[in-house]
Amino acid sequence: MGLIVQKFGGTSVGSVERIQHVANLIKQEVDNGHSVVVVVSAMGKSTDQLADLACEITPRPSPREMDMLLTTGEQVSIALLSMALHELGLDAVSLTGWQAGILTEGVHQNARILDIDEQKILRYVEEGKVVVVAGFQGITREGQITTLGRGGSDTTAVALAAALGADRCDIYTDVTGVFTADPRIVPTASQLKEISYDEMLELANLGAGVLHPRAVECAKNHQVKLTVRSSFEAVEGTEVKEEALMETGKVVHGVAHEDQVTKVTVKGLKNEIGTLARLFNLLAEYHINVDIIVNQNIQGQERTHISFSLDTQDLDKALQVLEEHKAQLDYEDVVFEREMAKVSIVGAGMISNPGVAAKMFQSLAEAGIEIKMVSTSEIKVSCVVPRKDMVKAVQALHSAFGLDRVAEKVSASN
Amino acid sequence: MGLIVQKFGGTSVGSVERIQHVANLIKQEVDNGHSVVVVVSAMGKSTDQLADLACEITPRPSPREMDMLLTTGEQVSIALLSMALHELGLDAVSLTGWQAGILTEGVHQNARILDIDEQKILRYVEEGKVVVVAGFQGITREGQITTLGRGGSDTTAVALAAALGADRCDIYTDVTGVFTADPRIVPTASQLKEISYDEMLELANLGAGVLHPRAVECAKNHQVKLTVRSSFEAVEGTEVKEEALMETGKVVHGVAHEDQVTKVTVKGLKNEIGTLARLFNLLAEYHINVDIIVNQNIQGQERTHISFSLDTQDLDKALQVLEEHKAQLDYEDVVFEREMAKVSIVGAGMISNPGVAAKMFQSLAEAGIEIKMVSTSEIKVSCVVPRKDMVKAVQALHSAFGLDRVAEKVSASN
Repeated sequence: MGLIVQKFGGTSVGSVERIQHVANLIKQEVDNGHSVVVVVSAMGKSTDQLADLACEITPRPSPREMDMLLTTGEQVSIALLSMALHELGLDAVSLTGWQAGILTEGVHQNARILDIDEQKILRYVEEGKVVVVAGFQGITREGQITTLGRGGSDTTAVALAAALGADRCDIYTDVTGVFTADPRIVPTASQLKEISYDEMLELANLGAGVLHPRAVECAKNHQVKLTVRSSFEAVEGTEVKEEALMETGKVVHGVAHEDQVTKVTVKGLKNEIGTLARLFNLLAEYHINVDIIVNQNIQGQERTHISFSLDTQDLDKALQVLEEHKAQLDYEDVVFEREMAKVSIVGAGMISNPGVAAKMFQSLAEAGIEIKMVSTSEIKVSCVVPRKDMVKAVQALHSAFGLDRVAEKVSASN
Repeated sequence: MGLIVQKFGGTSVGSVERIQHVANLIKQEVDNGHSVVVVVSAMGKSTDQLADLACEITPRPSPREMDMLLTTGEQVSIALLSMALHELGLDAVSLTGWQAGILTEGVHQNARILDIDEQKILRYVEEGKVVVVAGFQGITREGQITTLGRGGSDTTAVALAAALGADRCDIYTDVTGVFTADPRIVPTASQLKEISYDEMLELANLGAGVLHPRAVECAKNHQVKLTVRSSFEAVEGTEVKEEALMETGKVVHGVAHEDQVTKVTVKGLKNEIGTLARLFNLLAEYHINVDIIVNQNIQGQERTHISFSLDTQDLDKALQVLEEHKAQLDYEDVVFEREMAKVSIVGAGMISNPGVAAKMFQSLAEAGIEIKMVSTSEIKVSCVVPRKDMVKAVQALHSAFGLDRVAEKVSASN
């Protein structure tokens, strides 16, 4: 008899039939006696279609106007889903981001949620209504419409679950849960029953694509009980929680990949205290997300090179910012390598298992794959490799760390 | 050096190319040194497409959710138009109805504007920005999104022009101005250079379709200088003002028609004081717009019949309301005739010219057209006729009242 937040992504509401199906999934929870707050994304490819329209008009649309444009996508979804719920005899009301009191910072296209006025939703919940909230969007204190960036609807759902003190947050998507690797690339990948926030965070950041990283972070910070499940198949999903069940003998729980990676190297920077800070503060100021950073600082040398990886779509902006601040940063040259990919292994058990990184490098070397950059954390190791080798790399690692479903069975029967 | 409000309808912004063209029309006024506030409708058929989606889900969508759905149409337009203005080097900012401070009453799908917080727009005007406002939409005091009903973008434009004290309000549409009759029906129709608010009001109400009646009313009340002109052709439009130039010798300035008319007759109502009030108060309560009302009240009879015409799309709702209140209204039967049309002649000179109505009836009789209902005002006469005879009726009247362009020329040369 609790309060549940359900989130449905674009493919889950991609057509009138899908919306009607989603209405039925919501009705099941209402019939179980729960109060339900729903978060939806824009229908299927509608966001892309709107973005295409903008592109026809200008190659560099104003971020404010892009937010104005794109937020209509979710507004269409919430209206249609509410109508579908009415058809099932449920009392439902739709709310845009600003109507739901989702206050964000003023960064268009990539705003973070600052606060949620939960009373704006609770007053409807208390009236017995299903509240259908537009994901991905919010409003600034000045009344400007903002969006949360790609995958932002997940963040909306988790933030709402946290603000409302929801008992559960179910993220419905087009896959049945979190897998040991992308099943499209590794056919022997299997679904995880549970995963910890930290591992999920690494996987989300590493491009597993199932959940938006900020959503996982928010869930961890507020201890929101998160489930990833399918709106297409009525099967159990993957639970994301603080302490996930450790599968015996598995140090690595998943292999992730990301294919839009570019490596940038800024050459001949002054080798002095403050160089790194100056460079990355500048990029942050322009909202360029840098991923892996490598700086082999050789003591005594006057000039040093700093390499970093970023999403390929941010490359032009990054190059422009670097060019405009060349004098200030005092460097000699910038070079970049597109067509890179990042493959990563993730597992909470890694901390207590030395040699995991070494095993990864070994597997990649045996597969003849060149490693361009390396980054490690307590629970993951990432390598930037040429994109052409990405699939081979993921498969090799999945196998090397004993995640292959079939291989497992074979070895068990031996 | 004034402030101008420009309104562009759906066909005027029906494609990326059209939006770019509209941006150029706006730039011309800016280049002339004017401050410009723009009101736009949804792109082309997008409102209909959204309504179709709703229809696939439910035959009776909730009015609140329809407003939520349809207002996305204008939001797309304002964003794209602002981007197109940016491309031309203009500083532009888009505002939704609620961002522009357009406060309406709480009647979904047919709300009237209560107030406009003009400061929300003026602060951008003062920054030198072109402000692009979403037409057709507003917000209630409770923060609900509303729409102003069909053609509501005209009303938005005129109401903004009034609130901002604009020097001019230009309504750009797909015709070059107001004609003596619909040129698609009467090929000899000609464009009027000027027309008075009152005449335009009658024409607008009579289905001339060029301007929304509420917009004209608002323009008259606030003495907004209104021009109807084409966004497709750079020709002079029609000015709508208090006292329009009278064309010599013309009693009738235009012939209008409306083709979605149904005549309803409520039979056997108690013939007593308060019957009419009771019936039409009830219909008003359910927001059913009644047009012509006819009640031949024969003194001494216990029961009377009341006939009225309405838009055919309101028929089902009207019949339902009448049925549900049969006991309260105390009537015997309801009959209706669909497939009717209304033809009207309009002219400010009518007041001082007796026999105009008689001449109209005579023309229709000579054309063998049955008159079902009659309604007169100081500056118009309307007849409800079978829809099959509508075109014939309009042509006959246009000719009878000396409006035919060619005929005029012929008679002038004789």
